[in-house]
Amino acid sequence: MSAPAIHTPMNLEAASPPWPITFDDVLAARERLAPYLTPTALRHYPLLDDHLGGGTSLLIKHENHQPTCSFKVRNGLSFVTGLTAEERARGVVAASTGNHGQGVAYAASLLGVRATICVPVGNNPEKGAAMRSWGAKVVEEGRDYDESVGAMLRIAKEEGSVVSHSTNDRRVVSGAATMSLEMIEQAGGGGLDAIVIAVGGGSQSVGALTVARELTPKLEVFGAQAAGAPAIHDSWHQRTPVQTPRADTFAEGVATRQPYALTYATLCEGLEGFTTVTDAELAEAIRLILKLTHNLVEGAGALGVAAALKLKDQLRGKRVGVIFSGANIDTTLLRRILNREI
Amino acid sequence: MSAPAIHTPMNLEAASPPWPITFDDVLAARERLAPYLTPTALRHYPLLDDHLGGGTSLLIKHENHQPTCSFKVRNGLSFVTGLTAEERARGVVAASTGNHGQGVAYAASLLGVRATICVPVGNNPEKGAAMRSWGAKVVEEGRDYDESVGAMLRIAKEEGSVVSHSTNDRRVVSGAATMSLEMIEQAGGGGLDAIVIAVGGGSQSVGALTVARELTPKLEVFGAQAAGAPAIHDSWHQRTPVQTPRADTFAEGVATRQPYALTYATLCEGLEGFTTVTDAELAEAIRLILKLTHNLVEGAGALGVAAALKLKDQLRGKRVGVIFSGANIDTTLLRRILNREI
Repeated sequence: MSAPAIHTPMNLEAASPPWPITFDDVLAARERLAPYLTPTALRHYPLLDDHLGGGTSLLIKHENHQPTCSFKVRNGLSFVTGLTAEERARGVVAASTGNHGQGVAYAASLLGVRATICVPVGNNPEKGAAMRSWGAKVVEEGRDYDESVGAMLRIAKEEGSVVSHSTNDRRVVSGAATMSLEMIEQAGGGGLDAIVIAVGGGSQSVGALTVARELTPKLEVFGAQAAGAPAIHDSWHQRTPVQTPRADTFAEGVATRQPYALTYATLCEGLEGFTTVTDAELAEAIRLILKLTHNLVEGAGALGVAAALKLKDQLRGKRVGVIFSGANIDTTLLRRILNREI
Repeated sequence: MSAPAIHTPMNLEAASPPWPITFDDVLAARERLAPYLTPTALRHYPLLDDHLGGGTSLLIKHENHQPTCSFKVRNGLSFVTGLTAEERARGVVAASTGNHGQGVAYAASLLGVRATICVPVGNNPEKGAAMRSWGAKVVEEGRDYDESVGAMLRIAKEEGSVVSHSTNDRRVVSGAATMSLEMIEQAGGGGLDAIVIAVGGGSQSVGALTVARELTPKLEVFGAQAAGAPAIHDSWHQRTPVQTPRADTFAEGVATRQPYALTYATLCEGLEGFTTVTDAELAEAIRLILKLTHNLVEGAGALGVAAALKLKDQLRGKRVGVIFSGANIDTTLLRRILNREI
């Protein structure tokens, strides 16, 4: 790990609104991540293309192969390696439904930083166990992600630890952007015409838009949310921020109830389209991915494929990047999905 | 791909019986594979160690992340890249319950070689679909793997194609050995004290023994078979080759009924121990791996963990390499396992 890279502040001047990060921030994040992560594969499955039809070719980014089984390890490592020595000594606190928390916990364990993760009451217990296994303290508080954020802020105040917001942090968004940077480079000569990407808080999608703006301005980026947690989707279509009273989806990775300060304006400016997918459609996509590719994905990890099926007319004949963004589905839920109870 | 490496014949002189391949063969295979495969991760899951107990530390080799979701892609690529131009022009034929066939089909598609794969009647249909998706012709014949071998030999005679035996081929065993070479190198300073490895035909285990003999002679290699397909296990314990009338396990990747000419003597000489695992124990290991690591493995892919649980007293306090060797479980079987019907 190179000390100079760690202490480089985000390039705020160049990141004029509505673009919270610059391409240089992404390159810097990639430098910081390089000692800890190797690029994940970008693969092509003829059986998935046959299922989709229309001559569309899906290129699958295997973030399910990451150490914490989720792209969020990029965000956590980008955050923790971006802290100053003084900040590291204070420890970090995050709120998460699991994958951001695992990413932060894993990164903190590698760098010897104390981590506390706030999760909603009744959250996926397997994600909690994984966070603890990386040495983090796990605090269950709040009825959903947005309420856990309150616990995080209180603990940060009480303990003096550094807040690691899962979206509203330039280091986090820059970390997520390294994924799209890899994808675009790996797609090579044929390139990518479009990316279909899950939106929880927006780190993946704003990361993709930032990288695309620099490297492939014609790339179309489509957002996707769960139909039961459509706050950012609705805000995008209405061009005004709206909140929802509940986030009602088994895909806890995207179970948010409002747009986020750092990402919302960029999504409004940059996304080509924005769709939603029901939990039934997500469950079907999980079964399809298992059957045709033998990869395990969680709800949020199936959003790309489920949304690509929904957008098939717009994607006809295109080379489309889709991310298996995470695999941390709990086994009880997986059983219900295989039994077609969902 | 470097032409000289392709045409290098196996180093038969140096490979004195009972060692069918040399360490140089493994290095040559790694060279041939390098343009097509990147090393898979070797990872540590504290939750798995906690479950195992006894201070044993499992290091997991993620062959489930390979392009065909199985280590057999190494074998297939080592085989096809090791063919002469004349052999490639004739096309290849293999017998397989699926993973060797996928490896050969995938390799053949990359190198523009015609491939036919013989599978048992009623074989895992998802594996057959994957083979076809890589452009192979799939022939269903025989009641199990060993009977499909007969179909392979007949087709080779009829069509003049080159036989790709899943075990009795030095290129295949050398390909499998590259996995252990990577593991031992990746384990680094702490090294490995033992490897627990699934035995179907023996390519993985003989590969491990060959590499260990060169690099870490004290490494203990333990073999594991399914209790319902224990022919090689029984032969090892009785020190005489025995066949079984049936191969009765859901782990089709290790459903063999006899020892193989190229690997049996090496197993007799090299293995530290050899155990079996029931299908119920395999099913439990699949559930455990899903819950604690969120990785999908098929029956053969869970053999290492299941056997490590069985051998826990002998593995106490050791650093133990275990391979998630494949993920191509069919979804109907996975559902039954999650429902605890197995």
